Amino acid sequence: MNIAFIGLGNMGEAIAQNLLKGGHVLTVFNRTKEKADALLQAGAQWAATPAEAVERAEVIFTMVSDDGALRDVTTGEFGFLPALLEGAIHVSCSTIAPDTSRQLAEAHQQRNTVYVACPVFGKPEAAQAAKLWLCTSGNEAGKAKIKPLLELIGQGVYDFGEDVGAANVVKLSGNFLLGCAIEAMAEAFTLAEKNNISRTAVWTFFTDTLFNSPVYKNYGKLVAEEVYQPVGATPALIRKDIRLLLDEAQKALVPMPFGQIVHQQLTATVAKGVKDIDWAGFAGEVSENAGVSKR
Amino acid sequence: MNIAFIGLGNMGEAIAQNLLKGGHVLTVFNRTKEKADALLQAGAQWAATPAEAVERAEVIFTMVSDDGALRDVTTGEFGFLPALLEGAIHVSCSTIAPDTSRQLAEAHQQRNTVYVACPVFGKPEAAQAAKLWLCTSGNEAGKAKIKPLLELIGQGVYDFGEDVGAANVVKLSGNFLLGCAIEAMAEAFTLAEKNNISRTAVWTFFTDTLFNSPVYKNYGKLVAEEVYQPVGATPALIRKDIRLLLDEAQKALVPMPFGQIVHQQLTATVAKGVKDIDWAGFAGEVSENAGVSKR
Amino acid sequence: MNIAFIGLGNMGEAIAQNLLKGGHVLTVFNRTKEKADALLQAGAQWAATPAEAVERAEVIFTMVSDDGALRDVTTGEFGFLPALLEGAIHVSCSTIAPDTSRQLAEAHQQRNTVYVACPVFGKPEAAQAAKLWLCTSGNEAGKAKIKPLLELIGQGVYDFGEDVGAANVVKLSGNFLLGCAIEAMAEAFTLAEKNNISRTAVWTFFTDTLFNSPVYKNYGKLVAEEVYQPVGATPALIRKDIRLLLDEAQKALVPMPFGQIVHQQLTATVAKGVKDIDWAGFAGEVSENAGVSKR
Amino acid sequence: MNIAFIGLGNMGEAIAQNLLKGGHVLTVFNRTKEKADALLQAGAQWAATPAEAVERAEVIFTMVSDDGALRDVTTGEFGFLPALLEGAIHVSCSTIAPDTSRQLAEAHQQRNTVYVACPVFGKPEAAQAAKLWLCTSGNEAGKAKIKPLLELIGQGVYDFGEDVGAANVVKLSGNFLLGCAIEAMAEAFTLAEKNNISRTAVWTFFTDTLFNSPVYKNYGKLVAEEVYQPVGATPALIRKDIRLLLDEAQKALVPMPFGQIVHQQLTATVAKGVKDIDWAGFAGEVSENAGVSKR
Repeated sequence: MNIAFIGLGNMGEAIAQNLLKGGHVLTVFNRTKEKADALLQAGAQWAATPAEAVERAEVIFTMVSDDGALRDVTTGEFGFLPALLEGAIHVSCSTIAPDTSRQLAEAHQQRNTVYVACPVFGKPEAAQAAKLWLCTSGNEAGKAKIKPLLELIGQGVYDFGEDVGAANVVKLSGNFLLGCAIEAMAEAFTLAEKNNISRTAVWTFFTDTLFNSPVYKNYGKLVAEEVYQPVGATPALIRKDIRLLLDEAQKALVPMPFGQIVHQQLTATVAKGVKDIDWAGFAGEVSENAGVSKR
Repeated sequence: MNIAFIGLGNMGEAIAQNLLKGGHVLTVFNRTKEKADALLQAGAQWAATPAEAVERAEVIFTMVSDDGALRDVTTGEFGFLPALLEGAIHVSCSTIAPDTSRQLAEAHQQRNTVYVACPVFGKPEAAQAAKLWLCTSGNEAGKAKIKPLLELIGQGVYDFGEDVGAANVVKLSGNFLLGCAIEAMAEAFTLAEKNNISRTAVWTFFTDTLFNSPVYKNYGKLVAEEVYQPVGATPALIRKDIRLLLDEAQKALVPMPFGQIVHQQLTATVAKGVKDIDWAGFAGEVSENAGVSKR
Repeated sequence: MNIAFIGLGNMGEAIAQNLLKGGHVLTVFNRTKEKADALLQAGAQWAATPAEAVERAEVIFTMVSDDGALRDVTTGEFGFLPALLEGAIHVSCSTIAPDTSRQLAEAHQQRNTVYVACPVFGKPEAAQAAKLWLCTSGNEAGKAKIKPLLELIGQGVYDFGEDVGAANVVKLSGNFLLGCAIEAMAEAFTLAEKNNISRTAVWTFFTDTLFNSPVYKNYGKLVAEEVYQPVGATPALIRKDIRLLLDEAQKALVPMPFGQIVHQQLTATVAKGVKDIDWAGFAGEVSENAGVSKR
Repeated sequence: MNIAFIGLGNMGEAIAQNLLKGGHVLTVFNRTKEKADALLQAGAQWAATPAEAVERAEVIFTMVSDDGALRDVTTGEFGFLPALLEGAIHVSCSTIAPDTSRQLAEAHQQRNTVYVACPVFGKPEAAQAAKLWLCTSGNEAGKAKIKPLLELIGQGVYDFGEDVGAANVVKLSGNFLLGCAIEAMAEAFTLAEKNNISRTAVWTFFTDTLFNSPVYKNYGKLVAEEVYQPVGATPALIRKDIRLLLDEAQKALVPMPFGQIVHQQLTATVAKGVKDIDWAGFAGEVSENAGVSKR
């Protein structure tokens, strides 16, 4: 297939490589061209604007930082929406508000094109290994057509129906659940520490036994050792996601006390100017409030 | 070995059976004798009081409902402490306050006997299958001596050192982490529901992928389906555990915002008179506050 | 002076009457004309649109329900902004977001007119008695010119400087502080009730002594007696204000745990469909969670 | 009357002086004798132990730091309970747990003596000026007999009935309400500060108008200026009171989210080692989490 890929951060670049390896024709665009070097060497074409990138594309993937960036590349001054071929399918992988998906889906439909929400779960290494977990929602025909492409980039696809915003709700919920696991472990490990019990011993026990899932193991290690490097995503970035979640909760009339606390911890982290750490480092707020801060 | 077992609830009875199967001589005591029937048929001896139960025992297991009950069988009117053989080891499996362990350990030491904390993780079925996870703390020699017995009842033993209260801190932390997972899923699933996304679909996705540990799978199923049966432990019982945790946090000067919220939800559940459900049913508070209560 | 008044709810009508009594020429507009009857009988002129209302006005007061309504009457299809006389001053009394004030102030300035923020504190009876408390911010010359008018409607004016959004921040903070007082009393009175102490006795004591301010006295009476009538403002309306406050907190990076709780209680109240009560009725959430709900 | 007074801190000494000025015969005891100097010069008698102090007393006042200290002077080794004259009335002014009052009341009754709870509200200056607010509960005859004495030390007495713990619940609730006012102002003033609005201007406005009660004025000034001197009561001391309140809430099944937050803020303050400030200084936690700490 003729595919366009827009947004070549760590995640986007890895996904694009897997599409290329699948034997598809790929045209790419990114704000800074250097990020495209490896892809161009591997056979991808460069486009000077989002609009140029999609000229011949049957399917367009986007993986950008937030709602504003997605609107820019789609409906902005050099956005690709007016340039889309009839019937083209936009696979939107960014973590954004459900309403942004709904509005863009309508804008696509008015031009006889299709917008499918397809947020992804996994770190850059998982993206490289084609081991992402994918959530989809939106137009059924569109989802059916892109299925073979999604199989090139992920280890599983879960569909959440025709409301195109649904997969975005699930993605935001995922980051929320991660945040809750981090806060819960931070509280438990800090209580252990102040009882002279090794944080790492507690982490080992729980993640060997009851909580033996990769996210508890991996994020828990950061919280146990209080080393929040390397930076997978910054506190400010995930704080934005949690805010999007709380915006949905506000509209849907769902009190989310855990959501509020995770947001407050991230807000305090950002307000104090702590930024060069992985977002799991908001766990440091718990230590700080218990008088045993390592920061 | 000659072993005494005191406290034959669902958990205690299952553990005692596995000790018996291991070829040991077992004397048992329980407040209500009927609970002992199966064990007596399998070859255990009955004792009329805790004191009588321990007369010849090298090792004494206790598995009772709370701190008060443990004090009763140990230092109460018919308690076994004065009747212990010199060098006898008390393996205390109940979920209790760390300070109760510390005080009892001292009382045992004064009588040249040993108290080891050994709280367990797992449901009754896990106890039957000898698949419990065990945490130990306290006297090193005592722990070494009971090691072969613990291998008969669990699938793994994690030690937390010589401070006898440490394993109790870990046990309370475990129930806290479970409570956090329940609240987090309740918030996420309720947000999904109010966005017309199936609670069960969200549960399936997350517990197939990022949160694929038994506790998310099992407790999450209850929260997703909002059927809180059968009753593993009541809201009132686990509320007691969370309160013990918060008492530790209070003493150790650790603010635990998640802990407070889990406690508040359990308190509201109990205050409203909801009792014939598993404790995970406190998740119903989230639904109720979002106006979609099933209760 | 020639004055226009737009928005004749309970508050607006009372304020307009006091301006009229001050001897000024008044033209009024409201979505439903009946609300203007008393004013028209007292000598005010009716205008068919906001634009028509301001044609000769030196000063324009607006008192509408929210940000959207204010934008409608100002920059909407029949909005008055294009119709303003040069130098006209818009006194904006509604409870709105600071950024709405900032944007409108700029829009006014581009047309050589002036926008002053002037949110008010007080119930309709206080408005009738010209006993409102007024907060102002924005253009200094504009504020100086309207001073005599403000003295006709309030018992005191507090200025918060040239940033036109400042008075709106203060207004939102006021509703937040009221919400906190309500929640705090709800918790204290419910604890008293469950200790068999009269809620009213506790209210009497505290509001006679340490907390002898009108807001504790008046809102506290509602909370003590659990009769949330008559409806001064609905839970949904003030929930909107608290959300605006939290939006500011989010932008300014200020964790506000009390703000989050007040918002959650109001959200639960609205989600449960409770609406024909004064907003102080969110205090009923505390009773409900303690198992002593009167609803 | 022949009166004994035990506990001569800033509060106790001031109360005792007013009793002496009322023309009564006063015998005093304090752990450190120097605190009694002024009273002895003014005509009071010194007693070497609590027991000696009460030998001839018809009424005994106690004003000590906590539950433990009160038990010490009453039922401890040198405690006065066995030495009381038949019919003597113990007026217990300390801030303690309701159950401590209930237990001591029963102990007094068994010796044909009377225990009345009489916690007080006010700072040392109010005590000197005989302007305290007094809450009473317990035996009706006892309360009637001490009425004239209470009028010497306070400006008003509020009674809460025969359950002797009731006045203690009210006292704990008072400290809770103060804590809530402090936290609420801290959040509002910090939001103002980060919007470049003067904290003091906001404090002036609210405490001149809606919240014009002494406690908002006085505590609010500390929070506005962020100068937490002089030390009226330490964070650790009032944290103990809030914990007693939460213990009551726990027993009475009342979720108190504001109570939990005030306790967490005080816990963080104490955990960080901040101690030489007035307890209102826990407001600094809000500033710290917003990145604008002055500490």
